[in-house]
Amino acid sequence: MSRKTSLSGFHEWLPQERLVELHVLNTLAEVFELHGFSSIETRAVESLGTLLRKGEIDKEVYTVSRIHETDAPDPTDTSRLALHFDLTVPFARYVTENAGHLTFPFRRYQIQKVWRGERPQEGRAREFTQADIDVVGDGALDFRHDIDVALVMAEALAKLPIGQFVIRINNRKLAEGFYQGIGLDDTAGVLRNIDKLEKIGADKVAEALQAELGASAEQAELALSLAQIRAEDSSFVDEVRALGVENSQLEEGLRELAEVIDELHKRAPGTAVADLSIARGLDYYTGTVYETNLVGHEQLGSICSGGRYDSLATKGKRTFPGVGLSIGVTRLISRMFSQNMVEATRNVPTVVYVALTSDDDWSAAQDIAQTLRSRGINTEVATKAEKFGKQIRHADRRGIPYVWFTSYNEGQVSHEIKDIRSGDQVAADPAVWMPPTDDLQPAIVEIDHTGK
Amino acid sequence: MSRKTSLSGFHEWLPQERLVELHVLNTLAEVFELHGFSSIETRAVESLGTLLRKGEIDKEVYTVSRIHETDAPDPTDTSRLALHFDLTVPFARYVTENAGHLTFPFRRYQIQKVWRGERPQEGRAREFTQADIDVVGDGALDFRHDIDVALVMAEALAKLPIGQFVIRINNRKLAEGFYQGIGLDDTAGVLRNIDKLEKIGADKVAEALQAELGASAEQAELALSLAQIRAEDSSFVDEVRALGVENSQLEEGLRELAEVIDELHKRAPGTAVADLSIARGLDYYTGTVYETNLVGHEQLGSICSGGRYDSLATKGKRTFPGVGLSIGVTRLISRMFSQNMVEATRNVPTVVYVALTSDDDWSAAQDIAQTLRSRGINTEVATKAEKFGKQIRHADRRGIPYVWFTSYNEGQVSHEIKDIRSGDQVAADPAVWMPPTDDLQPAIVEIDHTGK
Repeated sequence: MSRKTSLSGFHEWLPQERLVELHVLNTLAEVFELHGFSSIETRAVESLGTLLRKGEIDKEVYTVSRIHETDAPDPTDTSRLALHFDLTVPFARYVTENAGHLTFPFRRYQIQKVWRGERPQEGRAREFTQADIDVVGDGALDFRHDIDVALVMAEALAKLPIGQFVIRINNRKLAEGFYQGIGLDDTAGVLRNIDKLEKIGADKVAEALQAELGASAEQAELALSLAQIRAEDSSFVDEVRALGVENSQLEEGLRELAEVIDELHKRAPGTAVADLSIARGLDYYTGTVYETNLVGHEQLGSICSGGRYDSLATKGKRTFPGVGLSIGVTRLISRMFSQNMVEATRNVPTVVYVALTSDDDWSAAQDIAQTLRSRGINTEVATKAEKFGKQIRHADRRGIPYVWFTSYNEGQVSHEIKDIRSGDQVAADPAVWMPPTDDLQPAIVEIDHTGK
Repeated sequence: MSRKTSLSGFHEWLPQERLVELHVLNTLAEVFELHGFSSIETRAVESLGTLLRKGEIDKEVYTVSRIHETDAPDPTDTSRLALHFDLTVPFARYVTENAGHLTFPFRRYQIQKVWRGERPQEGRAREFTQADIDVVGDGALDFRHDIDVALVMAEALAKLPIGQFVIRINNRKLAEGFYQGIGLDDTAGVLRNIDKLEKIGADKVAEALQAELGASAEQAELALSLAQIRAEDSSFVDEVRALGVENSQLEEGLRELAEVIDELHKRAPGTAVADLSIARGLDYYTGTVYETNLVGHEQLGSICSGGRYDSLATKGKRTFPGVGLSIGVTRLISRMFSQNMVEATRNVPTVVYVALTSDDDWSAAQDIAQTLRSRGINTEVATKAEKFGKQIRHADRRGIPYVWFTSYNEGQVSHEIKDIRSGDQVAADPAVWMPPTDDLQPAIVEIDHTGK
């Protein structure tokens, strides 16, 4: 299935690949609804002013203009339209615009395409699908939602055929409090450098902290010691305390992160770690932050990220604090295909292909098909009475498992159904026959690479 | 629910409106799959060259560029990217690019947003969702697919809460053959004028045919006589013959249209008419053409249109003829809301809100919620042990029908569930309790305007 796309960075799936994507999207939507999240969609375009208010992403935006606008764009005009690059910023705008029509805490999920003008590489597409959940409060939002959204995502990811994953969790208050406690006040600068830890290593980060931010060797050492702490339970609290830093914000962060990790350890063991190196680039996060790796595919980067934001959405003096997570569906699916992890059991939704005995049978064949469809059996009808062998070959090539034959003898109608895979052919009644449950819909199965 | 959108022509639905949209989209997808159509999606952008090859739509396209491209656009550069304005042209490109990976006749459905830079008015959005089905052959495509796609759409539309509809069907060969038979060779010009019949009336069309195309009064009269023929069965053939025009293409068109109408009349009575005024603007149609009106909402325009195209998709000498129909989902749904035709029975997916007796119950309440969810019951958990009255009011405001209460007495745990609507409260076991089937998911119901 390795095909070149005709436009770099824009994926298009074949029908059998789309079945895998649909399985992923439907599984996510089902779990989100089980937890009371409502579906919404926002428009694909936002004003540049809305998009650029938060985060440093101006390099990656696609602007949109009517074809007959032939003047050069005015770079200072923030009313220009652009395609959204994530679903969090549009959601914040949606909440402030529709606050009078929503009830809070508002739980929503949103599964849509987003666009970024990035240089394409594996895991970095220009058009990709995100699946987000967020809970947003009016004025305040209980901290327990930070635990709740992580539990929902842990449950959703566990239902996908992607193997093992780890949600890595940190807390901005913890990190910022710690840095302030050791006398490093440019917390954004420290976070930006710590974010490079996996890429460039501890020595280079220590150098950069000293060269860029004027940190002492000891401060750099302490910042790195913090970033190297990992634990599946709240034992990390003692490790941080052992570094001897005192700060009230640090204490609040420790308490929050301990509560999240303990509850995840209890309710979804093995799916989460406290990882004090997690920084998250976007500057709107104010508390818990999350990233998620697929075990064995760490170089792919995070497949599910997010955090708590206390003031992304504001309307005059009213603020709407929220917490949420976003799955990079396209990144995940691209990996599933490039590593040959999953496949659909067939290429088409169709279960039965109704063959024609003569060209005049078409309308009668439609009656048979409709009887099957009325019982949930996806059915196609041949359009020409070609030789049966040819009709069977057509069904086989399309990936349809069963062919229906009807014969008319002296006013008597009889039906038979053939399983193309086994060659078995048996008498059948269109009002009664059902395929085995496994054949009713194409299924998504993990590919066994053990060679057994 | 009448709200102003913050960007003209771009609809955004509230969660309860989105439930209606999801119901429509899921119903359509289900019917399409019952008939063996595979889901695909294409990228949102195409090159201008691909988009402008067919049809006269260059005025309505949105171009896309990276934000740092600050030069004035080059209007002659057809490699520039633009947002797709329909799903047919992108599908044709997809078929030619992926022909080696598809099996023909290829049946696909595609439900996606499209964008047009139109002046907004009711029924004309700038961003809207289309739901398309097409069947495409390799080299040839049996005519019976022209009947099949109309039957699929008739079945799909009948399952939506939109009242009565009529699929109006004509045939380009019939119209073009007739015009040639009476000596009018600029068939595109005649079709363009006939297309205005409903808008400006017969007299003005007759004038225009004479003034613009040099038709005689008699030719104009004959062209209008043809356009005024309507029938629910093939009786229209005799009416056309009575006009005394002979042409071989006309005969082929009559035969095809009669076959489509007779089969629809038989299999889906009352849903289709032969309407010889239907022209369809796009120049790629070559045979059957379809438009669909909602009865009582004719001024809304067509909600489901399409036709047969013999050479939209070509790859060297290879052609991929197709036939398909497209539902304007956003147009349909906007109308359903503006006319107050339907509503969701509740605003949220949630069935049960698990109340807290004390703040320490949260984890135990999550266990109860997870037991309910494992049986498909969408459940939320309170985050704070506020007074029961306040917790009930919160659930009620969110539109959640049931609240779950747990009490702990001397190590004994007991559960009760309250139906907020009736006030009934009964003992319940989280491993066994089920809501009535009607409460399991929000339903979409037609609003009764008879005042009963």
